Amino acid sequence: METNELLIKLRKKIDLIDFEIIKLINHRMEHTLRTRRLKPSILDQGREQEIMNAIRLLSRGLIKPEFSTRLYKEIISESKRLQEQNLKLVGFQGEHGAYGEVAVKSLDPDLVPIPCPEFVDVFDEVTNGQLDMGIVPVENSLEGAVTQVNDLLVQADVDKIKIVGEIRVPIHHCLLALPDANESEIKVAYSHPQALAQCRKFLHGRHLEPRPYYDTAGAAMMLSNERQRTAVAIASKLCAELYNLQVLFENIEDNQTNSTRFLLLSREESKEPGNKCSIVFSTEHKAGSLFAVLKLFSDAGLNLTRIESRPIRNDPGKYAFLLDFQGSIRDQKVIDTLERAKKEAVVFKFLGCYQEAPLLNGTGGV
Amino acid sequence: METNELLIKLRKKIDLIDFEIIKLINHRMEHTLRTRRLKPSILDQGREQEIMNAIRLLSRGLIKPEFSTRLYKEIISESKRLQEQNLKLVGFQGEHGAYGEVAVKSLDPDLVPIPCPEFVDVFDEVTNGQLDMGIVPVENSLEGAVTQVNDLLVQADVDKIKIVGEIRVPIHHCLLALPDANESEIKVAYSHPQALAQCRKFLHGRHLEPRPYYDTAGAAMMLSNERQRTAVAIASKLCAELYNLQVLFENIEDNQTNSTRFLLLSREESKEPGNKCSIVFSTEHKAGSLFAVLKLFSDAGLNLTRIESRPIRNDPGKYAFLLDFQGSIRDQKVIDTLERAKKEAVVFKFLGCYQEAPLLNGTGGV
Repeated sequence: METNELLIKLRKKIDLIDFEIIKLINHRMEHTLRTRRLKPSILDQGREQEIMNAIRLLSRGLIKPEFSTRLYKEIISESKRLQEQNLKLVGFQGEHGAYGEVAVKSLDPDLVPIPCPEFVDVFDEVTNGQLDMGIVPVENSLEGAVTQVNDLLVQADVDKIKIVGEIRVPIHHCLLALPDANESEIKVAYSHPQALAQCRKFLHGRHLEPRPYYDTAGAAMMLSNERQRTAVAIASKLCAELYNLQVLFENIEDNQTNSTRFLLLSREESKEPGNKCSIVFSTEHKAGSLFAVLKLFSDAGLNLTRIESRPIRNDPGKYAFLLDFQGSIRDQKVIDTLERAKKEAVVFKFLGCYQEAPLLNGTGGV
Repeated sequence: METNELLIKLRKKIDLIDFEIIKLINHRMEHTLRTRRLKPSILDQGREQEIMNAIRLLSRGLIKPEFSTRLYKEIISESKRLQEQNLKLVGFQGEHGAYGEVAVKSLDPDLVPIPCPEFVDVFDEVTNGQLDMGIVPVENSLEGAVTQVNDLLVQADVDKIKIVGEIRVPIHHCLLALPDANESEIKVAYSHPQALAQCRKFLHGRHLEPRPYYDTAGAAMMLSNERQRTAVAIASKLCAELYNLQVLFENIEDNQTNSTRFLLLSREESKEPGNKCSIVFSTEHKAGSLFAVLKLFSDAGLNLTRIESRPIRNDPGKYAFLLDFQGSIRDQKVIDTLERAKKEAVVFKFLGCYQEAPLLNGTGGV
């Protein structure tokens, strides 16, 4: 190989290492922000000393302690600066670039999306105060209810977690490839099985073999890490930026009206006046008991927007009902109706009152 | 989970991220040192500008461009400082902590060991000038010749790569576990199949199930990354430091006389006077042709220390011979013998003249 070619190859490797370093430091910042509410004050000199000692011990090979100490002084000082800013952390399930992150960013670009491995982690970290808020998909226009999330809502400890908002996000998939990939060489497409199913016609038309992966953003990350030139990922446009991939095609879903409704969760109730409420209840297992509750809403003229039944996990044969209706918890009619419903129900939980998300218009809306 | 427990858990994660950050920056420094001989001067303003632009583009999420720019100024300035130091880079096969790295460090602690995926990469990077030297195992006291390395010596382009030294390294295996592992919970031991075989009695006595892995140091790295509390790795003591593992037992090999002879390779011939030479030759495929060459050494009173035959890959049925003998290339008798051998041989290559490594004494020597 020519000297110049070798140099170019080595520099490409260095660029990839830089990409990883920045990603890891971002990851570190996310973790330090998570600790913010768990400690009495931002400054913890004992902990800082502990980190600097550890860094000095790790400094071997080409890393001199003087250098790594300077570097970590910068990192810790930036980390403290961020902790002082009172940024709002919002947990979402998946890797960076998941549609949950797209939802957070479309709510408010100043929110800090924090990746969580599972939906249950989003609920747990809001409950225990590591995160200010969480965002979870509750239903998709094509696929229906997101079972895991609905189960977590049924089980939620409403003293520690509340629904404070909702947002509808159009789901537009992109076909992402490595920056140096050649379209004609591409053979397989990785993504979440649902995303692959939503792009079936597109994939078939281009003779791309669908390969299921645990997550859309995870597929983009894998492609970026493993640098398979014959593969593409189906994921959000945000993933292209985050994982340094090129967008070969946008809006490749077969049905352009694909959208997901996300719920925003918080430890504290919403202070804004809302126009929609969510409750969970179960009734006695006898004829007419569900009807009796629903009749209360009908009698009060409260419009139900959704009812979903979920089997109760540790009580086979019994069901819990998730119910959304239009109305504000500040309205006396709503307060009275909920009081009456509580008496009819065996278990009753008020999940929150929040502003209803507008329906999506135009292309990509439902 | 208690707030304090959560804080401890998050801080442990941050410590692991720091470990990864430092490792990646070390990896980056190794790569920049590799570029040193491939560019006209250390300073390359165009490239520096390119890196800073890329870093600014990567600065999203919690990473502000002002912060990442400060950080990378530190990294680039340290990288240039290292490039100016004229450090000697020595390639070895495997991950950091491999016995090849142990060999480099025992030669001279100021040498910079650089990991290479395969033996062929060590040869290639010495040949093309990325590395100053390479170190490769040529034979092990228990396992015999290292086939791949001997094949690479047969194929070597001796105008661009020479043997300039040798070293014998005692191979002492350690049983390594995670810092918080409990000895009683450990069930499986990961390592290179040869290392597992060398510790068979030890593993059997402690009811540990051997699990083959591609590399000893690779097994230690995997253990450190995946944090399996029921697993251990068999690797060098150096791996304990590098991968933040605890040494449960040292010298666990069944036969304490296990050692490996490594060859030191360089683009330039050794300037030091040597007392041992290595050659490769092939003869015509007829009776007595090998004998005729060997007789020349016998007649000259030159003591052979090793002869190894290797089938020639692209010429089935033919053999090349690797021959080591005691003597200096500055000695007229050696020069004359090699001249005569060259005439008898079909192919003849002089691999180098270097100082013979002393035999190991005491425990662990052979």
